[in-house]
Amino acid sequence: MRALAGRRDLACINTATLGHREPFERTVRRVAAAGFEYISPWRREIDEDHPEEAAKLIRAAGLKTGGYCRTEYFSADDVAGAKAAIDSNRRAVEVAAVLGAPFVVAVVGGLAPHSKDIEASRAQILEGLAALVPTLRSTGVGIALEPLHPFYAADRSLLNTVEQARQWCELLDPRNESIFGIAVDAYHVWWDPELEMSLQRAAGRVKALHVCDWLRETHEPLLDRGMMGDGVIDLERLRGMVERGGFTGPIEVEIFSKDNWWRRPPDEVLNVCRQRLDTVV
Amino acid sequence: MRALAGRRDLACINTATLGHREPFERTVRRVAAAGFEYISPWRREIDEDHPEEAAKLIRAAGLKTGGYCRTEYFSADDVAGAKAAIDSNRRAVEVAAVLGAPFVVAVVGGLAPHSKDIEASRAQILEGLAALVPTLRSTGVGIALEPLHPFYAADRSLLNTVEQARQWCELLDPRNESIFGIAVDAYHVWWDPELEMSLQRAAGRVKALHVCDWLRETHEPLLDRGMMGDGVIDLERLRGMVERGGFTGPIEVEIFSKDNWWRRPPDEVLNVCRQRLDTVV
Repeated sequence: MRALAGRRDLACINTATLGHREPFERTVRRVAAAGFEYISPWRREIDEDHPEEAAKLIRAAGLKTGGYCRTEYFSADDVAGAKAAIDSNRRAVEVAAVLGAPFVVAVVGGLAPHSKDIEASRAQILEGLAALVPTLRSTGVGIALEPLHPFYAADRSLLNTVEQARQWCELLDPRNESIFGIAVDAYHVWWDPELEMSLQRAAGRVKALHVCDWLRETHEPLLDRGMMGDGVIDLERLRGMVERGGFTGPIEVEIFSKDNWWRRPPDEVLNVCRQRLDTVV
Repeated sequence: MRALAGRRDLACINTATLGHREPFERTVRRVAAAGFEYISPWRREIDEDHPEEAAKLIRAAGLKTGGYCRTEYFSADDVAGAKAAIDSNRRAVEVAAVLGAPFVVAVVGGLAPHSKDIEASRAQILEGLAALVPTLRSTGVGIALEPLHPFYAADRSLLNTVEQARQWCELLDPRNESIFGIAVDAYHVWWDPELEMSLQRAAGRVKALHVCDWLRETHEPLLDRGMMGDGVIDLERLRGMVERGGFTGPIEVEIFSKDNWWRRPPDEVLNVCRQRLDTVV
């Protein structure tokens, strides 16, 4: 396992961790000053008609782009909705290329809004992902399929385990040309009884490792994530499993925390994140 | 698949569905009047020093006991805590025998309160379950291992999928002597990409099928369950999978719904449950 202490070049921050309270420009400066080499922005922060401006800001601060967040949901009630999602996600891939992001994170969507047919929605999602392949090939940008916690199966993602993501990668990118890979987020996968075996099988497929923590008393399933070390996840063990599979990328901190960390001063949040990366991840 | 319409002998109500607002005696009478043949009570409703009284009430109303809810968590920070849980759960098994319940539902416990060692807590839980075997054999009562939704992994259950429950059954009851089986609850398992395959493998192991529904907009992960038909779960499909595995027991309605169904008159709740069993399950 890699030693993380002092490794600015392995430290990545996802801007959601700061709650999107400030202009992107300020966020970029703060992140660079706090000792991260990578930043993963969200689409809401980027003018997708002129992404070169954001790209310049990132480079000027001495940063690199980790990943680009994120796809719109591929599942939809009708063909027009499915097509609109694909078009939007194609644009996200093009923008990621301008930003120098190696991949777009895919949150794939849950059941189509008026459906109970889980297999049909999964099939629709897979079709949508497959439709991105020409753009992925021409840009060289990949898709990091992010399995989301099963809590979000209905409304956000029918992709819910590492093993399922690996199977989708096999379908979508059978020769592992790095077109499709997996974003492993500790929050979403820590509970999985098959996690270790799944990550062994997924060796060479993991494009991103996201960290935060699962608070033992979690009252709100979306925006109550914990800082690394404050919850129940054995993050070192998880990182070990991922790195044994050949992962060499930076570790990305992504914390949605409406009532705690999003209320604290951004520099404090960044400093605690940086310190916890060194000590508990 | 069985046709459920009018099948009182396949209709079971879990008393939690009524929110435990009334004395057990009244609940028993209401349940019988509403057209259920089975009732699954909770330990809080039963005087475990004199369970024959509750058993008499149930019989006098013409009802049978479905299952008995539920074990205390086997995971604990120390040996004394683990032993206390086993002792309590042994008592639950003895009481179930008096009530005529074929099984006790096991909610096994999450991570031990001060632990991040998921494997150690799972091992402790398995040890606790194994310690019940002599009592299970002498009473003829079984344990229905209930995989809980992964949302509860930290604080309620490290048993989270049907496949994991099947593997535990193989460990604890390798000859399938009906000592250990599985309680499949739609709410906990509907999202699982391996559900169909897992239920095929678990054929002959399912002791109970619990139904309710997953509301698309679920704001509170514990007490915001939906009435069958009001959410996203294809309950008929799930029941088909379970019945193809040989399940012949009653279908048990179990709805935790603090802000909706627990506020409605008990007879209304029972009537809607009964009707939905006939039409959407």
